[in-house]
Amino acid sequence: MSHRICRNIARPDPQALRILGELGVATVHEAQGRTGLMRSHMRPIYPGARICGAAVTVSLPPGDNLMIHAAVELCLAGDVLVVVPTSDSTDGYFGDLLATSLRARGVAGLIIEAGVRDVADLAVMRFPVWSRAVSAQGTVKASAGSVNVPVVCASTAVNPGDAVVADDDGIVVVLRARVSEVAPLAQARAVKEAATRKRLAAGELGMDIYGLRDKLAALGVQYIDSPQE
Amino acid sequence: MSHRICRNIARPDPQALRILGELGVATVHEAQGRTGLMRSHMRPIYPGARICGAAVTVSLPPGDNLMIHAAVELCLAGDVLVVVPTSDSTDGYFGDLLATSLRARGVAGLIIEAGVRDVADLAVMRFPVWSRAVSAQGTVKASAGSVNVPVVCASTAVNPGDAVVADDDGIVVVLRARVSEVAPLAQARAVKEAATRKRLAAGELGMDIYGLRDKLAALGVQYIDSPQE
Amino acid sequence: MSHRICRNIARPDPQALRILGELGVATVHEAQGRTGLMRSHMRPIYPGARICGAAVTVSLPPGDNLMIHAAVELCLAGDVLVVVPTSDSTDGYFGDLLATSLRARGVAGLIIEAGVRDVADLAVMRFPVWSRAVSAQGTVKASAGSVNVPVVCASTAVNPGDAVVADDDGIVVVLRARVSEVAPLAQARAVKEAATRKRLAAGELGMDIYGLRDKLAALGVQYIDSPQE
Amino acid sequence: MSHRICRNIARPDPQALRILGELGVATVHEAQGRTGLMRSHMRPIYPGARICGAAVTVSLPPGDNLMIHAAVELCLAGDVLVVVPTSDSTDGYFGDLLATSLRARGVAGLIIEAGVRDVADLAVMRFPVWSRAVSAQGTVKASAGSVNVPVVCASTAVNPGDAVVADDDGIVVVLRARVSEVAPLAQARAVKEAATRKRLAAGELGMDIYGLRDKLAALGVQYIDSPQE
Amino acid sequence: MSHRICRNIARPDPQALRILGELGVATVHEAQGRTGLMRSHMRPIYPGARICGAAVTVSLPPGDNLMIHAAVELCLAGDVLVVVPTSDSTDGYFGDLLATSLRARGVAGLIIEAGVRDVADLAVMRFPVWSRAVSAQGTVKASAGSVNVPVVCASTAVNPGDAVVADDDGIVVVLRARVSEVAPLAQARAVKEAATRKRLAAGELGMDIYGLRDKLAALGVQYIDSPQE
Amino acid sequence: MSHRICRNIARPDPQALRILGELGVATVHEAQGRTGLMRSHMRPIYPGARICGAAVTVSLPPGDNLMIHAAVELCLAGDVLVVVPTSDSTDGYFGDLLATSLRARGVAGLIIEAGVRDVADLAVMRFPVWSRAVSAQGTVKASAGSVNVPVVCASTAVNPGDAVVADDDGIVVVLRARVSEVAPLAQARAVKEAATRKRLAAGELGMDIYGLRDKLAALGVQYIDSPQE
Repeated sequence: MSHRICRNIARPDPQALRILGELGVATVHEAQGRTGLMRSHMRPIYPGARICGAAVTVSLPPGDNLMIHAAVELCLAGDVLVVVPTSDSTDGYFGDLLATSLRARGVAGLIIEAGVRDVADLAVMRFPVWSRAVSAQGTVKASAGSVNVPVVCASTAVNPGDAVVADDDGIVVVLRARVSEVAPLAQARAVKEAATRKRLAAGELGMDIYGLRDKLAALGVQYIDSPQE
Repeated sequence: MSHRICRNIARPDPQALRILGELGVATVHEAQGRTGLMRSHMRPIYPGARICGAAVTVSLPPGDNLMIHAAVELCLAGDVLVVVPTSDSTDGYFGDLLATSLRARGVAGLIIEAGVRDVADLAVMRFPVWSRAVSAQGTVKASAGSVNVPVVCASTAVNPGDAVVADDDGIVVVLRARVSEVAPLAQARAVKEAATRKRLAAGELGMDIYGLRDKLAALGVQYIDSPQE
Repeated sequence: MSHRICRNIARPDPQALRILGELGVATVHEAQGRTGLMRSHMRPIYPGARICGAAVTVSLPPGDNLMIHAAVELCLAGDVLVVVPTSDSTDGYFGDLLATSLRARGVAGLIIEAGVRDVADLAVMRFPVWSRAVSAQGTVKASAGSVNVPVVCASTAVNPGDAVVADDDGIVVVLRARVSEVAPLAQARAVKEAATRKRLAAGELGMDIYGLRDKLAALGVQYIDSPQE
Repeated sequence: MSHRICRNIARPDPQALRILGELGVATVHEAQGRTGLMRSHMRPIYPGARICGAAVTVSLPPGDNLMIHAAVELCLAGDVLVVVPTSDSTDGYFGDLLATSLRARGVAGLIIEAGVRDVADLAVMRFPVWSRAVSAQGTVKASAGSVNVPVVCASTAVNPGDAVVADDDGIVVVLRARVSEVAPLAQARAVKEAATRKRLAAGELGMDIYGLRDKLAALGVQYIDSPQE
Repeated sequence: MSHRICRNIARPDPQALRILGELGVATVHEAQGRTGLMRSHMRPIYPGARICGAAVTVSLPPGDNLMIHAAVELCLAGDVLVVVPTSDSTDGYFGDLLATSLRARGVAGLIIEAGVRDVADLAVMRFPVWSRAVSAQGTVKASAGSVNVPVVCASTAVNPGDAVVADDDGIVVVLRARVSEVAPLAQARAVKEAATRKRLAAGELGMDIYGLRDKLAALGVQYIDSPQE
Repeated sequence: MSHRICRNIARPDPQALRILGELGVATVHEAQGRTGLMRSHMRPIYPGARICGAAVTVSLPPGDNLMIHAAVELCLAGDVLVVVPTSDSTDGYFGDLLATSLRARGVAGLIIEAGVRDVADLAVMRFPVWSRAVSAQGTVKASAGSVNVPVVCASTAVNPGDAVVADDDGIVVVLRARVSEVAPLAQARAVKEAATRKRLAAGELGMDIYGLRDKLAALGVQYIDSPQE
């Protein structure tokens, strides 16, 4: 398979993306049947960010960020760049210069299963990044890769144009074709959780709200009054 | 051994718990002879929290948080919930709904050798959690476990009712029977450290305060004047 | 090789150190040909610190911090203490008492390929530390090591008197003999980056600024218009 | 997406599979442009095995092997079972009983991004397994998953019916549609490597065979005669 | 708690130990309700060993093996030495000299949550060791620890005199008081598994033997005939 | 610092190398004061090999093995190639073709802090390799590095011409200038250990041979007769 750059990709409905972004990773992950979650070694470089946008994907060789440069002009406002090296790497493929360039285009943030640098500057800029490492180790611009091809990032398949939601809990991917279906499911879940939260805050128990007492009995769990029993 | 839930546990003296909580993990760990410290892969989800309370322990199967729900009503104000899956797991067993429920009961915080989610909400709530991972991966409520049984959390044995102290340095467990003995030892250590701190701040050296010069000589460590020697 | 403590070491030009400190790890690392960077498992205990100073190095046995005490009086204002155990360890070799002592001497900060404790206090003091772990596990003062000998810290060789620059991106070491050569190179790089940053912020692309379009063509990367092609 | 089991999948040409199996992971990986390789945390439970077959894929919840049982009857002789839990897990989902069942159907081996047990028995049976862990921790048969759906195993996408080649070097996946194209490419590569091997064994140098001397010169690498230069 | 060495410990019934050793880790772990399994980072230094004996436990400081020497004379023929440092360490606490000494006393093997050295010699001697690392890094004999006290090894509590079973699948601990109860349960399980193995080898399916078809239907898992459905 | 290849390096006395190779890693490590040991994540690709030779060192960029090819012709019979990428990498930089080439020159083996492939072939050839990973991931031959410069491999500094000893316990480096001094020290240690081994095999205890009983008493370790004391 030769290296290629795909100029045009379909993107999800912006209104649905906005809804997913407001609801956040945990709710969206639940709403789509607990699929699409990236593994937990991906962490935000500073706390408090939450983004949602269409994925522009980049596959590149270890130690080389040429293809990130190639991807910049393919990004539209609101997009999320998803970058994966073809083998394990913690190098710093991305820093404040690339962030400045993406910011100029309105890109929402970066997901990279590798390293990132200039993180103090990125925090000041409030340019959100989720990565597996922070490293000042620079990269070259010498070898070919691809833009807007299917990739696997942190054990999750990502296609160009899929919705990517990221916050302090991690990152979840929603297939483009399912975004409009998942958004109302996520909203419904949020409404339901708000009601439950209110009851729990008032002192009701999950044991009663979810009807778990019978389940415990059915599972043969025994109540005892003290450890010595 | 069948699964069981123990309703009543003995708890340490509240006054002693308050003292341990004020002094923090490093001091308490030292005061009890450097025992009871959990391994360092357990990290707080936000900096600055410090808690101390009696342990309510939960042993549960991987990917299933039923027993956390069962544990909630057994917690008293000031308790610390300690949760351990029976095999390695980074799933998110706990989020803002369970935190709301525990907060309603006055629980001080959560120690979990697994994952947690809704961490942005938990930080806003100031509900402190120490965990080995952050993950939005949900769990089911299908399988049996136990509440208030002895567990091993992060390589440290915890019995129900033991004192659990946690802060930015990690987590230390004090056996219930030793809490009242350790509290004054920890206070004494803090007093002594304050005196030492004052001397060090004034420019005195640990070498002199602790009498280490003779030890270095006895160990045969040689002083040289420059690297070329 | 017997254990030894070297009293006097040569230090780099203070003005050059000041320049390196202002420019930070990523720029300095680039300016000296991408050498001297410590591996990314070394992390700051709180965000936002940036230091640069001459290395005072410590080699010590696992679980024993005697040699840190021996090193304190050899530190001058502005120095950076670099501590490495002779085998893997996450114990807490350093806490607020030693930080108080180093602060009294004007030491800039600590780099330790092991654990550190009292991190909440250290953050309040603004005493910067880069470590591979946070742990309350105390150490003894019983066995010999060396001060101001060559060490390897986080896969990077450090000689006493080398410049150590540390910030949120990590830690880079500049050989003492090269500090005065690297400082102006780093300044030149910073100037050049500022110009590039301005152009990128205005919407110019790295593809054009760096002339990457021809390279992509030469590498045989194909542009396609849509994924179905 | 509901859980589902797909009874019938298309499989690659058996002759092409046989060729890939003879050539092994490194050669096949090269022949298909260095794609499809699983990450290196997957290791064989004993050395010396080499298999190639069509993937029957299993996605299952952590700590539950029900879906492996469901997959057995869908396997044909020569197939390779590929099993992935939906979240990180090292439990032992598979042991000598399941191996006996798969052996009875002529299954070639197992790839599992989790744990496996009874490994001494599996070695005696010569039933090859590649896993990320060995663990006696048992699983339950309680929750739903899917068979013959696309999965991501060790950071590589696997579709049912793709070719899976595994040996001591790891595991590589060849898309079903590309198997017949890759097999002759791999053969050609093996022939070429055999010729190169012969020349290298006779003392010729890669520097000359691959024409690397000019490249080194072009890259500005300098030859010096001794370290002091 | 001061350091102490307990000379006499109660040991389980030798006949029950023999039975557990013959059945192995996976069967014993199942037979006692899936408790007592050490985590999977503990690995044998060579394949094929299987041991079972009473635990003689050692708690020692990092980098110091004095207490292993103290433990030797407390071991009886058939015992298993269980060694845990008080903080994370991969040093080589044990080598062929200590193995020679233990062999002279008939000790069955070593479990150590740290490093071991001389592994080639140990393999030739067939002295079985399970460890978390192999390392030539030597230790000193300078600091106090304890022998025959409760320890936590690889996340599992071990009391002196508990039964320790180890093979290629890992290590499981059976409480001394439960050994005579677990042995016949393990035998019963082995008999049952042998019968199941015979049926599976003959081509019967676990789906039918365990009655899983109804469970899949109840869980709502759908069968489809081809991926396009 | 520009990239360079040093053609000529000084090597240690062959007779001393032969002695170190016969004695092995643990003994040599001890004999030179427990210095020079590489960290334990470096493992042999097959058990039972033991080598010792002069280091030919290679520093190369991630994902690029050009400089290994450049190094081949600089190796003499008996040398050991030591290869380190400039940033973290698990790619397979080396396989059976390069091994064939090195074998043709009489090279003793390879130490690489990265990945290696064709390990089944390498085992058949008995070409020994110590690496941190096994991976079929190929590399390119595009970027510059250096040969015979100082490197840091697995946290240990290695200069060209230093002695490298490797066996199942790991890898130890002896400075070239110290080889002739360390060899007789290692021999003396081996003689002493043989005598100790004989006494231990006859049932004498390390407690008595090393005079540890007084030390335990001095440390305040208490003997008790049973756990209940």
